Amino acid sequence: MATAGKVIKCKAAVAWEPNKPLVMEEIEVAPPQANEVRIKIVATSVCHSDLYSLFEFKHEKGFPVVLGHEAAGIVESVGPGVTEFQPGDKVIPLFLSQCRECRFCKSPKTNQCENSCPLVLADMKTEPESRFTCKGKKVLQLCGTSTFSEYTVVKQIAVAKIDPAAPLDKVCLLGCGICTGYGAAVNTAKVEPGSTCAVFGLGAVGLAAVMGCKNAGAKRIIAIDTNPDKFEKAKVFGATEFVNPKDHDKAIGQVLSEMTNGGVDFSLECVGNVEVMRSAIESCVKGWGVGVIVGWTDMHDTAIRPVQLIAGRTWKGSLFGGFKSKDGVPKMVKAYMEKKLKLDEFITHNMTLDQVNDAIELMKHSKCIRIVLSVSPQ
Amino acid sequence: MATAGKVIKCKAAVAWEPNKPLVMEEIEVAPPQANEVRIKIVATSVCHSDLYSLFEFKHEKGFPVVLGHEAAGIVESVGPGVTEFQPGDKVIPLFLSQCRECRFCKSPKTNQCENSCPLVLADMKTEPESRFTCKGKKVLQLCGTSTFSEYTVVKQIAVAKIDPAAPLDKVCLLGCGICTGYGAAVNTAKVEPGSTCAVFGLGAVGLAAVMGCKNAGAKRIIAIDTNPDKFEKAKVFGATEFVNPKDHDKAIGQVLSEMTNGGVDFSLECVGNVEVMRSAIESCVKGWGVGVIVGWTDMHDTAIRPVQLIAGRTWKGSLFGGFKSKDGVPKMVKAYMEKKLKLDEFITHNMTLDQVNDAIELMKHSKCIRIVLSVSPQ
Repeated sequence: MATAGKVIKCKAAVAWEPNKPLVMEEIEVAPPQANEVRIKIVATSVCHSDLYSLFEFKHEKGFPVVLGHEAAGIVESVGPGVTEFQPGDKVIPLFLSQCRECRFCKSPKTNQCENSCPLVLADMKTEPESRFTCKGKKVLQLCGTSTFSEYTVVKQIAVAKIDPAAPLDKVCLLGCGICTGYGAAVNTAKVEPGSTCAVFGLGAVGLAAVMGCKNAGAKRIIAIDTNPDKFEKAKVFGATEFVNPKDHDKAIGQVLSEMTNGGVDFSLECVGNVEVMRSAIESCVKGWGVGVIVGWTDMHDTAIRPVQLIAGRTWKGSLFGGFKSKDGVPKMVKAYMEKKLKLDEFITHNMTLDQVNDAIELMKHSKCIRIVLSVSPQ
Repeated sequence: MATAGKVIKCKAAVAWEPNKPLVMEEIEVAPPQANEVRIKIVATSVCHSDLYSLFEFKHEKGFPVVLGHEAAGIVESVGPGVTEFQPGDKVIPLFLSQCRECRFCKSPKTNQCENSCPLVLADMKTEPESRFTCKGKKVLQLCGTSTFSEYTVVKQIAVAKIDPAAPLDKVCLLGCGICTGYGAAVNTAKVEPGSTCAVFGLGAVGLAAVMGCKNAGAKRIIAIDTNPDKFEKAKVFGATEFVNPKDHDKAIGQVLSEMTNGGVDFSLECVGNVEVMRSAIESCVKGWGVGVIVGWTDMHDTAIRPVQLIAGRTWKGSLFGGFKSKDGVPKMVKAYMEKKLKLDEFITHNMTLDQVNDAIELMKHSKCIRIVLSVSPQ
């Protein structure tokens, strides 16, 4: 391409400081360095983790930054040493990499690549790398991705090549939330045929968890949310029963225990709230119940009575649904193309990158499931 | 036997109230009712759970009571409907039963029989059953066992028949602590060959966990205790490294992380302290580390940062080492008879039932590993 090896000037939504609207700016995107790939982002969606970085965690070291980590695009150019990608490849950037060389990548037990970009910039031991500048200032990249930009540069270990026929404005969702919820059910909880499951929180991650439970053959899928408007959508993904904690005086763990003769086989917390995490593990049946923490928070501790684990419950968590990212994402794209996985049903709004602040507002007030922003023409 | 069908008057150590020494009394032991077995206790050991009932939990509903739940004896007589046992059989009473009929017994995933006696008397929904009276008062049975007595009556679902050649003054230890620690390593954690393990607390349960790690093929077994006198004994059971938290200014999780390039594969908490439980899970490596709570407490919550589970750690617990009790105990006796399991090395004192208060004092001040009390002659 004509742009290869050159700085690209393009539009991006820059978060200059916490709690403030993003600002559409012209930024400079440097060419990819060794083992890096420069990607033209075609579509990005907005995930709660973007909001978390902006409104909750908001560490001073983390700004200015370009948010966005759930997207799909086309390779524009590659840096030295990149043999796996070529300009024109359709790809999904990965906030969790898969280097295939570290002890974590080599183990079948985990997807937590040791060479992944820290999820929290404040945890970085060295100066965070970025290929972005704006008005002469370095602008950070969120989780090594930053997809609220027409172009971004990502390490090749953090890029998945996907089916060239895949519609990027749909499969962009597989960059985070849908894999996270779906995989938490099928990979982490390992939901079994005939089992009873509870999913706490019916955002995109929770709905994807419902779909994971359904595809794994669960018999009963109890969907829990304080907003009953979400139950209709949960039904589409396979939920069989619905509980609004506000309808009950009892603790939700007690309600579920009574509904299920002692508790569910699998529970999935898709909210990111430490009290809900506790309710979710308490909702599991003794002996073999497995509770999985899917929702992200790092602000508080969550707690449990030791006897609840001694009684045979297992408490786990997973990141990106336990999928080894480079291997898993193309398979999830394939499943979508073969109609084994729903994606379109998550999308409640289509907007453009210019409208990202409107999208964030809708997300913040739970007025959407997933909003897809078109970024660049294909 | 001449006593069959009659009330037996015999000696027992009665706990009349919390925090007070036990009193040697003459009690009446009623004949076994349907599906019950009356056992002459030959040897009993003292376990921390006995002390927990006396000094910590001490619920008013739980007294007067005969403590003791780690023992071996000989069947004296059986009640109607008992076909599995005959007078003269060598047996180990089980505080956790195995009815073989409930959904938990039928599942290969758990040992938590639904028909087991509640471990905490205060949790009982109906008036606790007991075959003991003393001075006209009903005396309770701890966990349906009560082995600080020359005779006791136990449900047949809570009795394991063992090799008639087994020395009862040794295999009595298999009634609780040794199976609990050993099984937590082999059944619950599922320690793998070549792995790195950490065992917190080097009482009998912790030492048994060390032995479990060793027999499962662990390469490194790090034994942790604030009393370094215990390290020599831990070595006997297979520990390879020793850490006294008092020797370090850093959190023990940090110390272990540095010793092991990021944390251990398996950690076993054998103390029963909620802070140690937290340290033990924090000591696990991300990605696949498994922390098992073995020590018993129900007094406080234990806590964790959600991100530690999201990073791929698994937090579990187990009761009686995950052994289905009727199946597991005879196998553990067999392993001892075949010299695949150490038991003698746990026994630091041999005393008589009359000396039970001395034994409790030694236990309370950690001046022993296991004390075996001889109760009745064989």
